[in-house]
Amino acid sequence: MKYDVAILGATGAVGQRYIELLEDHPWFDVGVLTASERSAKNRYGEVCDWKLSSEMPEKVKNLEVVSTSLKDVKRTDQVDLAFSALPGDVAGPVEDEFAENIPVVSKASAHRMDADVPLIIPEVNPEHLELIEVQKENKERNGFISTDPNCSTIQLTISLKPLMELGLSEVALTTLQALSGAGYPGVASLDIVDNVIPYISGEEHKLESEPLKILGDFEGDHIEESDIDISASCNRVDLKDGHLESVWVDLEDEKSVDRVLETFETFEGPQKISRLPSAPERPLEVMDEKDRPQPRLDRNTNEGMSVCVGRVRDDPIFSIKYSCLGHNTIRGAAGSGILHAELLEKEDYI
Amino acid sequence: MKYDVAILGATGAVGQRYIELLEDHPWFDVGVLTASERSAKNRYGEVCDWKLSSEMPEKVKNLEVVSTSLKDVKRTDQVDLAFSALPGDVAGPVEDEFAENIPVVSKASAHRMDADVPLIIPEVNPEHLELIEVQKENKERNGFISTDPNCSTIQLTISLKPLMELGLSEVALTTLQALSGAGYPGVASLDIVDNVIPYISGEEHKLESEPLKILGDFEGDHIEESDIDISASCNRVDLKDGHLESVWVDLEDEKSVDRVLETFETFEGPQKISRLPSAPERPLEVMDEKDRPQPRLDRNTNEGMSVCVGRVRDDPIFSIKYSCLGHNTIRGAAGSGILHAELLEKEDYI
Amino acid sequence: MKYDVAILGATGAVGQRYIELLEDHPWFDVGVLTASERSAKNRYGEVCDWKLSSEMPEKVKNLEVVSTSLKDVKRTDQVDLAFSALPGDVAGPVEDEFAENIPVVSKASAHRMDADVPLIIPEVNPEHLELIEVQKENKERNGFISTDPNCSTIQLTISLKPLMELGLSEVALTTLQALSGAGYPGVASLDIVDNVIPYISGEEHKLESEPLKILGDFEGDHIEESDIDISASCNRVDLKDGHLESVWVDLEDEKSVDRVLETFETFEGPQKISRLPSAPERPLEVMDEKDRPQPRLDRNTNEGMSVCVGRVRDDPIFSIKYSCLGHNTIRGAAGSGILHAELLEKEDYI
Amino acid sequence: MKYDVAILGATGAVGQRYIELLEDHPWFDVGVLTASERSAKNRYGEVCDWKLSSEMPEKVKNLEVVSTSLKDVKRTDQVDLAFSALPGDVAGPVEDEFAENIPVVSKASAHRMDADVPLIIPEVNPEHLELIEVQKENKERNGFISTDPNCSTIQLTISLKPLMELGLSEVALTTLQALSGAGYPGVASLDIVDNVIPYISGEEHKLESEPLKILGDFEGDHIEESDIDISASCNRVDLKDGHLESVWVDLEDEKSVDRVLETFETFEGPQKISRLPSAPERPLEVMDEKDRPQPRLDRNTNEGMSVCVGRVRDDPIFSIKYSCLGHNTIRGAAGSGILHAELLEKEDYI
Repeated sequence: MKYDVAILGATGAVGQRYIELLEDHPWFDVGVLTASERSAKNRYGEVCDWKLSSEMPEKVKNLEVVSTSLKDVKRTDQVDLAFSALPGDVAGPVEDEFAENIPVVSKASAHRMDADVPLIIPEVNPEHLELIEVQKENKERNGFISTDPNCSTIQLTISLKPLMELGLSEVALTTLQALSGAGYPGVASLDIVDNVIPYISGEEHKLESEPLKILGDFEGDHIEESDIDISASCNRVDLKDGHLESVWVDLEDEKSVDRVLETFETFEGPQKISRLPSAPERPLEVMDEKDRPQPRLDRNTNEGMSVCVGRVRDDPIFSIKYSCLGHNTIRGAAGSGILHAELLEKEDYI
Repeated sequence: MKYDVAILGATGAVGQRYIELLEDHPWFDVGVLTASERSAKNRYGEVCDWKLSSEMPEKVKNLEVVSTSLKDVKRTDQVDLAFSALPGDVAGPVEDEFAENIPVVSKASAHRMDADVPLIIPEVNPEHLELIEVQKENKERNGFISTDPNCSTIQLTISLKPLMELGLSEVALTTLQALSGAGYPGVASLDIVDNVIPYISGEEHKLESEPLKILGDFEGDHIEESDIDISASCNRVDLKDGHLESVWVDLEDEKSVDRVLETFETFEGPQKISRLPSAPERPLEVMDEKDRPQPRLDRNTNEGMSVCVGRVRDDPIFSIKYSCLGHNTIRGAAGSGILHAELLEKEDYI
Repeated sequence: MKYDVAILGATGAVGQRYIELLEDHPWFDVGVLTASERSAKNRYGEVCDWKLSSEMPEKVKNLEVVSTSLKDVKRTDQVDLAFSALPGDVAGPVEDEFAENIPVVSKASAHRMDADVPLIIPEVNPEHLELIEVQKENKERNGFISTDPNCSTIQLTISLKPLMELGLSEVALTTLQALSGAGYPGVASLDIVDNVIPYISGEEHKLESEPLKILGDFEGDHIEESDIDISASCNRVDLKDGHLESVWVDLEDEKSVDRVLETFETFEGPQKISRLPSAPERPLEVMDEKDRPQPRLDRNTNEGMSVCVGRVRDDPIFSIKYSCLGHNTIRGAAGSGILHAELLEKEDYI
Repeated sequence: MKYDVAILGATGAVGQRYIELLEDHPWFDVGVLTASERSAKNRYGEVCDWKLSSEMPEKVKNLEVVSTSLKDVKRTDQVDLAFSALPGDVAGPVEDEFAENIPVVSKASAHRMDADVPLIIPEVNPEHLELIEVQKENKERNGFISTDPNCSTIQLTISLKPLMELGLSEVALTTLQALSGAGYPGVASLDIVDNVIPYISGEEHKLESEPLKILGDFEGDHIEESDIDISASCNRVDLKDGHLESVWVDLEDEKSVDRVLETFETFEGPQKISRLPSAPERPLEVMDEKDRPQPRLDRNTNEGMSVCVGRVRDDPIFSIKYSCLGHNTIRGAAGSGILHAELLEKEDYI
């Protein structure tokens, strides 16, 4: 018996990726697709402008889309879990409504930094799920909200986690981010052809704050944020998928390239994660070639679920610098969300 | 009466840009074009695969190309100055040969770091030209070599110069560099389509060392290098022209955004430079928009001779961060070389 | 004394190009800029998201934008001529309103095929302006509407005009069209990165019908359309500016490559056109290289006002095939519109 | 027991694709990899600059590369079949040498138009394999050469085959071809960024001649070429993979869109082909959407082995026009070659 899941905001870019990745999932079955009132009551195949190169799964083509409200969702089906792929500006109250009754795994930024909402990367901070009990009690709700970080945060933080034990204190990074990170229609082609845009709204703030929560400690009823310092500069480049990050880190305890490489190579995350269906063989893949990772060649490593690091080298100002790549709509969005839900199931939160 | 100038390596990308920019120059007249033996004795219009969107100037089409040797150059003409656009691996001895008799302004990296060779950005360190006398004496030559920095160095260092008076101590930067920086044929299209390459051979080393010499002090017979620390991470992106740099700087004396902005806005370089024919109205253009500078929109500012800075903002780790853009084949190559030669003329080195 | 002109729809892509090209025009002075109600009463510099790499002319920055209605335009200024860069869906009635009083040169498609509205390419069919009298009489208006063809039509038809005297009977063509042809925001970057879109709404119909009117004969009170057959297949490619067309033509009288080349090379259009300020030296530039014209290298030929043809060669099915390139926002839009207005002035229609 | 196969020219783009597609092939086992003398005697993983986004199969990493000569190949292994991915300029004599002893399935153009060499698309003209007996007798060889057409020919001809029964008489087409079609390094990025190149050396001639042989009739000892007329215009666009073709066809018997659609939809090729391991479910996929096929979205249809057609519509000059897309390095190269070899096995030529 599989769990019935709903995808909130199913016609958008992240929603489509959820549908693609859940097509043959062993535990979850997509039973409900929601969208705006305008699309509701039509078949998904009719209202969704499918943008992935895979085919739209047959099963969802004929599903009738429902409007994104708890009432409509409940009317069509008994739902065990909702994946929220809602736009940031509408997600807040809608997710609260759903969380009254069911677990919501959210990709939206609305609740990420709420004190009693976990911000989860399964390999990095699974213990933060304990905030869910705090949240349920605070909010007197039967369900809950558990959130995924921003795409550029996820890949960065997976690479930072193993460095915590080497005394990580400072992080500076420049991002070269893919077009799919802006959703659809997102960036106008005339803005990016033969160009780079040195600005992504809100992105630097997310990169400078979210990792502090993720790398923080759960203290019984709240997260004590990490006190590392992070500085980010964000750029959009003419690239389909895959965010590339040039990262500098300062380490207080161990600073050698060899030690960092060893730490990257042996990083696995908790064992309970590595056995989940969507877990990559290794969360981090270390590349030896002097010119890797490259987005087009490496973004699909381990079905897009591994973060690739390379060019680990000494630095004249910080301890170490390296390049870090992740598939922003898989590892950075739907793939991480599904792994997150698998962890919730394993830990009996669903 | 104009000076007769030779362009060494005239069929390459930088050589072509020299020809374009010198077409109607008030002081310099292109009289000699050199290339490899293979091209020699043919007309320039026949052997040059012209890659600029401007038309090849009529005047050079019928010039007979000579091989790049002092003997052949001297045979065709009396040359007052040579611009070297030679590839790095052949430039060294050839430029030494020419410098026996004539001034050589070189874009090649071969002699940049030689102790008695100036590495010049006219607005930044014109006083370093005094090394020429040291060089002439050391080498017992009638001519001399004076060099231009690497393209990514030039734009960075123009932005760093005004910060010296605020106590500049550390610089970290990530570059997003254009395809034309790799010359022709350079980067294969299959390597860059839907991709980013996080590596450019030798580039980080140049960025970390050349500015120290340029920002150093002339001490009578040598340059005392600056002791600031620089760290660079270099990336190639799918972009025709214009290198974009995400820069962090640490300032010991003044750290406010307002002070940095004011310093940028009022930076002019020495007055004697601003009156030269190829000098831009301002070496630095400060942009207010939150998403500028952008390569396609801003690389041609002041005919491509100004460096554009923008997004000047506070930083949690360093004092300040900003974005910096320059046209790599104009300000970063031929345009800077011509301004350099104009300065040499004004200072009576030619 | 210059004519005062208004630009209707001044904040869009075509409107911006009009402003750029009219900056130093000897006859026309931009006095009025219109836009939607939302932008009205603000300064142009505040409401226009300027997308050209040239700087916004100082003069227009502070002009107060007025809403696109005859009443508001009349209130601000006495206008001698309006250039309409309005979107197709609003242009129809608005242009009719303006034409009550003033001449309107329109880039919009709304009235192009109206029986008493000229569809003008100055070098091709200047005599069609005589329809203006018919229109004024029919519509009892003081002003009039005279239209510019679609961008892809203009460049094609300039290349077809000289072939009419060789017995042109059939034309088939495939277009590879630039992103700027779709306006702003136009094509989403996610739709075109590493892709081609084999469809442009309405474009094939325009290419198959507009040239028949343009190449038709003015018969005293109407245009007798040409009876050549045209078939078009349109594609959008990842390219900033410049439509490229692969063209086949069947010629009944003369079919040799040499004769076609000669006809292309000697085509000048009427002498009265070639003396207008915006007329290119030659409407058609013939390129000899086997791999030209290329959009990035050739779109700016003669300030973007010439159409480049190349690869003229024999064909196994038709008589001849060739490639044809034009700058779609200059020759294909604002540049042609200005040349059109210059012709109106010369012929005393203004 | 699997057949041992050699890949001649294994380090190039087509060779790499062969290795990728043969990784888990049920019948063929890659035992020998050849390359130039320079690479010979090194391990494949050391000398091959792997350009695919899949990982290099473990198995080949340690294979020692041998030089491309029959003697060296024979020394290392008993080979049952060779796939030739050799460059066109060296393939001719080398393939003749190998054919003395073993079957050679060649992607090179050298022998394609030889009178006794089959030019095969398995779904289109499998009966042409009978030329092999003619060839063996003529050349007195134990092996043989059987060739694959040019990439742009393969996809076009698969779409033309079903139209033969509707009286196909004329074909005109414009190609928009991907960068990978030029091999590696192939097209320089500076030539294609923000550009289109309206010329591909030799391509139009191949498109105008190869389909006539493929669509011809085997007449006991030779091929009687088809007498349809074909005209092609070829362009290179900034696109990774997937050639798009705008095609016109004249049909003498049946001209309706419905009839053409039905013919496309029911086209299957001979039954014996559809059961081969690499055969796609359907050689042709008809797309209904008005803006498809698109290279990035559709090139991988049926693992890249189906040709997608769409936009089938009436035409004012020809009978019908449509768009046609194929993955040029799978269906257009290694994938077709493998299907070709599977057919040879089924028909007992190996």
